[in-house]
Amino acid sequence: MGGDHAPQVVIAGADLARERSPELRFLLFGDGAQLTELLRGRPQLAAQAAVEHTPDRVNADTKPSQALRQGRHTSMRLAIDAVKDGRASAAVSAGNTGALMALAKFVLKTLPGIERPAIASLMPTRRSATVFLDLGANTECDADNLVQFAVMGEVFARAVLGVSKPTVGLLNIGTEEVKGHDTIRQAAAALRASPLPIEFRGFVEGTDLASGTVDVVVTDGFTGNVALKVAEGTVALYSHFLREAFRSSLLSKLGYFLARPALQLVRQRLDPRRYNGAMFLGLNGIVVKSHGGTDALGFANAIAVAVDLAEQGTNERIIAEMRRLEEEANRGRHARAS
Amino acid sequence: MGGDHAPQVVIAGADLARERSPELRFLLFGDGAQLTELLRGRPQLAAQAAVEHTPDRVNADTKPSQALRQGRHTSMRLAIDAVKDGRASAAVSAGNTGALMALAKFVLKTLPGIERPAIASLMPTRRSATVFLDLGANTECDADNLVQFAVMGEVFARAVLGVSKPTVGLLNIGTEEVKGHDTIRQAAAALRASPLPIEFRGFVEGTDLASGTVDVVVTDGFTGNVALKVAEGTVALYSHFLREAFRSSLLSKLGYFLARPALQLVRQRLDPRRYNGAMFLGLNGIVVKSHGGTDALGFANAIAVAVDLAEQGTNERIIAEMRRLEEEANRGRHARAS
Repeated sequence: MGGDHAPQVVIAGADLARERSPELRFLLFGDGAQLTELLRGRPQLAAQAAVEHTPDRVNADTKPSQALRQGRHTSMRLAIDAVKDGRASAAVSAGNTGALMALAKFVLKTLPGIERPAIASLMPTRRSATVFLDLGANTECDADNLVQFAVMGEVFARAVLGVSKPTVGLLNIGTEEVKGHDTIRQAAAALRASPLPIEFRGFVEGTDLASGTVDVVVTDGFTGNVALKVAEGTVALYSHFLREAFRSSLLSKLGYFLARPALQLVRQRLDPRRYNGAMFLGLNGIVVKSHGGTDALGFANAIAVAVDLAEQGTNERIIAEMRRLEEEANRGRHARAS
Repeated sequence: MGGDHAPQVVIAGADLARERSPELRFLLFGDGAQLTELLRGRPQLAAQAAVEHTPDRVNADTKPSQALRQGRHTSMRLAIDAVKDGRASAAVSAGNTGALMALAKFVLKTLPGIERPAIASLMPTRRSATVFLDLGANTECDADNLVQFAVMGEVFARAVLGVSKPTVGLLNIGTEEVKGHDTIRQAAAALRASPLPIEFRGFVEGTDLASGTVDVVVTDGFTGNVALKVAEGTVALYSHFLREAFRSSLLSKLGYFLARPALQLVRQRLDPRRYNGAMFLGLNGIVVKSHGGTDALGFANAIAVAVDLAEQGTNERIIAEMRRLEEEANRGRHARAS
């Protein structure tokens, strides 16, 4: 029931995801009457979906604390409960991000070794895509949080990008070791000293995000959220200027007409729907957040991210990496003590 | 002597600036033999320029502390000294940013009421341009710093954008009052309560930078530097995808040919050279930093920024605003005490 065009877009997106992956089964949480009505026109989806009527919903302006106290019978809460109970492999929502994170954290709890979950997503680059986190779950982070984000982001990149040895960089305002603030320098030192087989490449800058210098870019949730929205705004500005330019004369209009298939390819490569589906990393269960304003194609892509994460056993891998990190740290402590 | 193509680009840029503003006079600090040689081909510039031979220079990898200790005879230091001595109205350099800031701060000192200088620049938006600061002078900022940046940015916008009542926003990860961290919420509260006639519009998001929602966007130097470079990287990525697309077929090549004048206009509107010239705000004197990799056109634009700031008396206005802020604060304290 979440997002700007729910539940229509959610149902249409699920149907699109089903076409791509016919083995998928859906639990649809929301207004029973509305959902049943929408399924009527989609017999194939209806055959693979069960509607669970929920009397309540989380709104766009519901505060996280409110969702926690009063949201027990909302579609959002009950979808997450289904993940906890093992009835669903993953939950996908286009609803209120703050409420979704609060409910997911409360119901599913964080993975062993992870203090705080992070929001991760893919960003377009010259070479395929980069995993970028945290996108806003943690406004302030300490060095340990950033190290944990790096571990989670690396495992996420293996699952979603299919890279076997993802490279990892910490976002900074220069690549020299002396740049940035204490927290980020401590995190870099910890990652350099880490016994984990992470390909840590040190600091990267804002320009590296789009050039794809590394597979995973780690930052705090404040910087990450600003950077994500600056990138989105810049793409929109460029497209706006292009539209104005192509309309400016008869010759440019003709030029646009001839180059249109190529230009549509560019738009596709930068299409936010293509990168839809932000993962809440670090929880005992898979929760994927779709952009609230997306369409069926975007929502289907968010479902595809959830499917990848479930099939690849991403959470199990994160747990294993965190355990290894802890063991190595203990070994280090014992070695120093003896 | 600073930047990737010095001193050629600096001399060519000065000549271009002279063509635009024939009343300008130049003091050129650097290797005397090289500069004299370069001026030989430019008699009009030579007539309005004096060469000051400097035996030393600041390199791209010189640390700020090193520049302070050992840089007394560098072209950078001596150009700033000329501003302090009143021999020059402004200094423009394409050299090492950290060293330039350290030397400028040491020689010129900060304005009364300003704890820390900030780096400000223009960013392209749908509606003309936005003033953005801090771009990297202050990795960590407290609420007072952000308030001072807002005051300085507002005055800068009046001088450079020519807006009589610039609107100001604080960069955050949401527009609601509860969003963000303590520092930014404190700064917002102080700006809301401020007796200064500043048009403070509260929080803005990353997307607002390119849409031009406000005339001045204020943030800390870490976030600002990342945001600036993310925007640059995104423009480069979009241009790269466009070039690939136009090359992809014969029809797109023809389309490009027809739309070329319009496309060149887009490139111009997003051209980083157009926005070249970052001002060090908050010092007793005008210092403008040009991008190190720019060409003559970009360097001429940086000179134009310096000229605007000098002619508009920007520093005098900042001093007056800061004094007013202080007086109002004192009045508030007295009122509470009595």
